Amino acid sequence: MPNPRHTATLAISLLAIAQGAAASSELRETALDIFSPLPSTMPSLNDNRITPEKIDLGKALFFDPRMSASGVFSCNSCHNLATGGDDNMPVSIGHGWQKGPRNSPTVLNAVFNEAQFWDGRAPDLAEQAKGPVQAGVEMANTPANVLLTLNSMPQYVEWFQASFPEEDDPVSFDNFAKAIEAYEATLITPSPFDAWLNGDDGAMTEQEVRGLQTFVDAGCASCHSGINLGGNGYYPFGLVERPGADILPEGDKGRYMVTETVDDEYVFRAAPLRNIALTAPYFHSGVVWDLRTAVEIMASSQLGADLSEDEVTDITAFLGALTGEMPEVVYPILPVETADTPKPTGEVR
Amino acid sequence: MPNPRHTATLAISLLAIAQGAAASSELRETALDIFSPLPSTMPSLNDNRITPEKIDLGKALFFDPRMSASGVFSCNSCHNLATGGDDNMPVSIGHGWQKGPRNSPTVLNAVFNEAQFWDGRAPDLAEQAKGPVQAGVEMANTPANVLLTLNSMPQYVEWFQASFPEEDDPVSFDNFAKAIEAYEATLITPSPFDAWLNGDDGAMTEQEVRGLQTFVDAGCASCHSGINLGGNGYYPFGLVERPGADILPEGDKGRYMVTETVDDEYVFRAAPLRNIALTAPYFHSGVVWDLRTAVEIMASSQLGADLSEDEVTDITAFLGALTGEMPEVVYPILPVETADTPKPTGEVR
Repeated sequence: MPNPRHTATLAISLLAIAQGAAASSELRETALDIFSPLPSTMPSLNDNRITPEKIDLGKALFFDPRMSASGVFSCNSCHNLATGGDDNMPVSIGHGWQKGPRNSPTVLNAVFNEAQFWDGRAPDLAEQAKGPVQAGVEMANTPANVLLTLNSMPQYVEWFQASFPEEDDPVSFDNFAKAIEAYEATLITPSPFDAWLNGDDGAMTEQEVRGLQTFVDAGCASCHSGINLGGNGYYPFGLVERPGADILPEGDKGRYMVTETVDDEYVFRAAPLRNIALTAPYFHSGVVWDLRTAVEIMASSQLGADLSEDEVTDITAFLGALTGEMPEVVYPILPVETADTPKPTGEVR
Repeated sequence: MPNPRHTATLAISLLAIAQGAAASSELRETALDIFSPLPSTMPSLNDNRITPEKIDLGKALFFDPRMSASGVFSCNSCHNLATGGDDNMPVSIGHGWQKGPRNSPTVLNAVFNEAQFWDGRAPDLAEQAKGPVQAGVEMANTPANVLLTLNSMPQYVEWFQASFPEEDDPVSFDNFAKAIEAYEATLITPSPFDAWLNGDDGAMTEQEVRGLQTFVDAGCASCHSGINLGGNGYYPFGLVERPGADILPEGDKGRYMVTETVDDEYVFRAAPLRNIALTAPYFHSGVVWDLRTAVEIMASSQLGADLSEDEVTDITAFLGALTGEMPEVVYPILPVETADTPKPTGEVR
């Protein structure tokens, strides 16, 4: 005959597990209303069908430093796939050792952002890709020189033909950007949070689950939602309390520069949070190196919330569960220059 | 009964083939006295056993821009595995947008050079690897800061432990260099010339074989011999006729800076020629962009030889047969920084 005391203990344990499972299932339901797991297939792009040829071409372009005037910088310089898709600097160093105006965001999962750049001035990754190539403080190149460079290498011309087979003039700056966009659309990193959203209770630790609950309860998820937990809306930095000028420099008025609407002063795109543990330093100003501190700043400036030490720790742990698995990247072998290839120049115009 | 005329034609054809084969076999014998095909296994290194762990660690270090003070440059910046193991610039651009003194040589097959750098001042790749990391115009870092950086990332410490399991203090600047050396020893590129040396008559075109014959007959092989067709001896640039100061700048006295012997003024290590078609521009000064022109300059300055247009063309074609097959490189995922990781700085000291 079973020991009644043991039976009672067992019953209580089972109840606790059942309650835990119910709580987990309830939190999952709430979470699925706010966030989405990464899809299992590549997203479709506007007017840019993804093909294996285009991905390969885009990868070559992404890693090719000859796309910059100096031959020093490629897309991968500031969006380094070895280090979380960014460059771990406050602001990037570019052509002529000049500094960029804002922290370089990760390219990983960027295809799921509603718009690109901290101020959302590019509607998609193709448009984004055209920016740094031409920016004087970044790659300092011109579309004309990019095309001269590409056309000088028969291998590139062939790859463009294979990637845009229906076009008479496949080597164009638009197609350069589209190929890069197609490649970047492959840079998707499924994380423990995705596995948990998809039903695997064991994918996140108890602390991470607690962190998610607090992340939702405290209101973080009002701005950091959707597939990328951010990247899908614009909000004033300092909604409740404006942080100091070290963190929110006065000169950078954010989305105001795009819309020229006073309401958009110091408004920025909510940072997407996937792989955030890999991409310090934080914020558009890139001055905060510690993720915990960044969480505290957000809590006070955006939510006016007074989170406990434990709550901040839990949220930080949850953010760690957004670190995903990188796709394997085989380093490309790039086409060789010819006599017609424009020479690199480090001159600052 | 066979047609006697056909029989005669057949006999002549067979004779021509036999003569061709004999000539080819004779040239191969001569060539094998002068050159060597790449070995089928990795070379052994002085006091540095190559292990899979060490190769993986070395690859991470080779690609890690955080080994530079600024966080901008890795070994791969100037020895880019996507573009022939060099950077396709006259001289590299480094820390603070400063220019290096000499053209960056390819890292491919460099393990087979008798010594490293244009003046041979490093006896091996481990010693070489310590140079650019510390050079103020290149990565501008210090050994102490490299070690702080490595020790700040637990993943790196683990990798050093696994790579140097018998050592009490595995994270050292010496081991940093040894791991990079071990990785670089894997960067070997078998070429059509190797296949031909190994007995495959069809591996090189007739023109390439003719170019090899001319390369030997004209005397190019007196300096460009061995496994790497160079990289194994020191010779005055301008042995017969000194080229202009644009090609041989007066300020750079080459090996004289190492030996301080007057005989070594303007003496340089003969450039290794494997993958030379991928690594323009040429010479230590990096001012000649065209391989054909480089061949002509060498012929006149080093040999006093008056080669015909066809001979130059043939030699250039032969040099193309030295372009080898790159090993597949999976781009590494690097350890993530911690609060203790030294911050990158672009400041010029």
